[in-house]
Amino acid sequence: MSDQSNNAYEKLVERFTKLHRLNHLSAIANWDQAAMMPSGSNRARSEALAEISTLTHELLTASEVGDWIQAASDKTQDSFKKASLREMERQWQHASVIPADLVKARSLVTSNCEHAWRSQRPENDWQGFSKNLQEVLQLTREEARIRSESTGLSPYDAMLELYESGMHSQQLDALFGEVKQWLPDYVQQATEQQKSVQYQMPEGPFATEHLKALSLEVMTLLGFDFNRGRLDVSAHPFCGGVPEDVRITTRYRDNDFIESLMGVIHETGHACYNQNLPADTPGLPVSFGRSMGIHEGQSLFFEMQIGRSREFLALIRPLLIKHLTQGKELPAYQLDNLETIYRRVQPGFIRIEADEVTYPAHIILRYDIEKALINGDMAVADLPDAWNEKMQKYLNLSTQGNYKDGCMQDIHWPSGAFGYFPSYTLGAMFAAQLFAAIQTTIPDVHSRISRGDLSSIFDWLKENIWSQGSRYTTSELMVRATGEDLNASFFQQHLKKRYLID
Amino acid sequence: MSDQSNNAYEKLVERFTKLHRLNHLSAIANWDQAAMMPSGSNRARSEALAEISTLTHELLTASEVGDWIQAASDKTQDSFKKASLREMERQWQHASVIPADLVKARSLVTSNCEHAWRSQRPENDWQGFSKNLQEVLQLTREEARIRSESTGLSPYDAMLELYESGMHSQQLDALFGEVKQWLPDYVQQATEQQKSVQYQMPEGPFATEHLKALSLEVMTLLGFDFNRGRLDVSAHPFCGGVPEDVRITTRYRDNDFIESLMGVIHETGHACYNQNLPADTPGLPVSFGRSMGIHEGQSLFFEMQIGRSREFLALIRPLLIKHLTQGKELPAYQLDNLETIYRRVQPGFIRIEADEVTYPAHIILRYDIEKALINGDMAVADLPDAWNEKMQKYLNLSTQGNYKDGCMQDIHWPSGAFGYFPSYTLGAMFAAQLFAAIQTTIPDVHSRISRGDLSSIFDWLKENIWSQGSRYTTSELMVRATGEDLNASFFQQHLKKRYLID
Repeated sequence: MSDQSNNAYEKLVERFTKLHRLNHLSAIANWDQAAMMPSGSNRARSEALAEISTLTHELLTASEVGDWIQAASDKTQDSFKKASLREMERQWQHASVIPADLVKARSLVTSNCEHAWRSQRPENDWQGFSKNLQEVLQLTREEARIRSESTGLSPYDAMLELYESGMHSQQLDALFGEVKQWLPDYVQQATEQQKSVQYQMPEGPFATEHLKALSLEVMTLLGFDFNRGRLDVSAHPFCGGVPEDVRITTRYRDNDFIESLMGVIHETGHACYNQNLPADTPGLPVSFGRSMGIHEGQSLFFEMQIGRSREFLALIRPLLIKHLTQGKELPAYQLDNLETIYRRVQPGFIRIEADEVTYPAHIILRYDIEKALINGDMAVADLPDAWNEKMQKYLNLSTQGNYKDGCMQDIHWPSGAFGYFPSYTLGAMFAAQLFAAIQTTIPDVHSRISRGDLSSIFDWLKENIWSQGSRYTTSELMVRATGEDLNASFFQQHLKKRYLID
Repeated sequence: MSDQSNNAYEKLVERFTKLHRLNHLSAIANWDQAAMMPSGSNRARSEALAEISTLTHELLTASEVGDWIQAASDKTQDSFKKASLREMERQWQHASVIPADLVKARSLVTSNCEHAWRSQRPENDWQGFSKNLQEVLQLTREEARIRSESTGLSPYDAMLELYESGMHSQQLDALFGEVKQWLPDYVQQATEQQKSVQYQMPEGPFATEHLKALSLEVMTLLGFDFNRGRLDVSAHPFCGGVPEDVRITTRYRDNDFIESLMGVIHETGHACYNQNLPADTPGLPVSFGRSMGIHEGQSLFFEMQIGRSREFLALIRPLLIKHLTQGKELPAYQLDNLETIYRRVQPGFIRIEADEVTYPAHIILRYDIEKALINGDMAVADLPDAWNEKMQKYLNLSTQGNYKDGCMQDIHWPSGAFGYFPSYTLGAMFAAQLFAAIQTTIPDVHSRISRGDLSSIFDWLKENIWSQGSRYTTSELMVRATGEDLNASFFQQHLKKRYLID
């Protein structure tokens, strides 16, 4: 390796370290805005966040960064540096390729559309919303066209690349195509079989301090490092902060502990991934989480593979009783009853309220539609009918005239995030495949869960996924960890085993 | 005004607005570090804060800023813009005049000295500490020399300028010289008179939630705007955040409510100043608080002038009983007893534990010593003897061999903050003079306090001090508000009236 390329790589490390440090401050200020900030401070905070965002964009897209990447890449043989440069280039390319004018124009229309959406949705105002969405779509198509030209991918695939690098429609069509084959039948079978099953909901009121104590104890069980992270409250739960200081949030309701507890378990999955990313090269893109889908794979591994298993419910049942019933053994807290509650399948309109079985239908529907919208095969005006038709087909529900519970329910499109939705179901598939791989290495994994001996699971994830950061492509990562590329059949088997009676 | 100077002024507004927004993120991250952050995240946080500090230093000291100030100042007639440019130039000058090498070297030795001091102080290790302090002093003298050359002030006055612009040793010598005349006698009289007075301390344990509820209610009474600020907990109470989002902290002890409550009242004074600074030009130096002394003047106005008055104690007595005794009328909560507790005078070694009467002795002692150290009239080796001699003289206490409760007790010198101490006692003097001025405008101010009708006091402060920001020099501000420049006799009268029996 020449001195020049060495020097260029060092300059890149310095620049990306600087970006990481500045992003640290944005991340904490964003967390604070959602979890701590009084509402009157919102304008000043938004201005401060926009300012540093402009500044980091300039530092990332500066022409010297491209030159350094070129100089460093020319002669590097070292495989770690190659991976590191690949991820630097990806970030730089994503940020540099879009002209500043378009970034600004799109930021204006998305911010306008999202803001109006907050009142248009409850009013079911499709006419008002669709006009704004049309503007967002137009500029997103323009962005996708530019990204398409620079990558040689289709417009939609070029957007997908932002969230799920290396994943293209062809592979998604195949994966989701398989799911479409069996999913409507699974949904019907599960709901049919559950019709006659009786269960009892645990009754509140649950005090916030009890729900919080329960959450903290479950997070500890799941390996969350409180020396480098916190749990707080916000309107919409999320995992924020930085790998060195992970901030997760939840919300507590006095009549339901299940939602907040499962939310905490989900965010703890994201958190443990972040807390166990490579620590020797913090701030370099090669040390970041691999993709949105792999990230969601960790949170769904925690929530679905571990969290809703009978063994885990048996493990946390004493904690529920300790914190929520003052130690009383109530019928609603019997293991069979809890398992029944945790496994209910019920088709519904709203994605974020969907169970594990119906959830993929919500995603596949959105994937089909957003792909068509971005590739120019569907107009905004056709969206409600397309939505209704697919809801009928997958979940047997009509959204005719019901825009607010149909195509207006999500924040993603108004905020311009086209290409994000597939990550949710990819995550569910990654999680199922990872759990299947762990079962072959640790055959007694289920009994370990019921004993609370989770360390071997976390060690496996840490070794195979978490500590790898973005060293490998998603596909390489899955092959190294599980022996094969993403395969939807593990997810199918998982749902079949958990939800269908033979 | 020419187009060019207009243009230059606009560029300055843009630059200082950008700095204000970036400083917003630092301020929130600093608050978070003290009030929220888990300890394991400290290194990453410190690196992030250092990074943005380097960046804002570069943006402030860039050569174009000097050019713009020159161009804008040349032709400006507008008095607001003149003041605005004066404050911009002051900030720019303070930051630009010190070479980057010296900034870095001094940052290293102060960080080293402060870090070592944390363990050297409890060990009473003067030998170890004095070696580090010598390094800090050497580089601070070098900084003071450069500031002295650029301002034409003496080295110490050039450092003082950083905290208390326009205040020089000559005026301080006169002000503090007066205090030295009567203070030892006041301390002796007050302690003598209080010898035989009996009182009863309110007994804990006090639950944190009760102390917090009490604090929040008192802050509301004092006009804190919770829509743009918060109260939290940290090891060392402070007022942080930004004017648009003020974050104050306290600490709760289960055996004492007085310290946390008076701390909250003190920080609320800082907070109300910040929350009522000029809102139409946020981010411009002309909108910042006038000086450390004026800031301390507001916090001591709240704590000493209002907070420890008999009328205010009468006002909050029902709140103490409501939150701390479950509504019971206990002897310790009788007004006379509370007043006795709040007015105890007791010479002691430790500045931060000192009462209102002995506090100025601690400051004047430090002022005399730090002035001599910076001006080269005293060596570090002479410090303990000088300290002991002055403690004997002012408070009749010996610190012979007791370094940890003597010249090693404060963080200021190890961290390089020479010139800061006078602000504390200047603040007490400003507060007394402002209260005296209010009394002439609102003769029934005392009965208003006991009725809880504090708005006229706050309106007066808002009009005369808070909303003025840095529009006027400290001296002009005081003349406009009270009819004369700072005059120590108001403080003397205040202490005499409150602490000495005729």
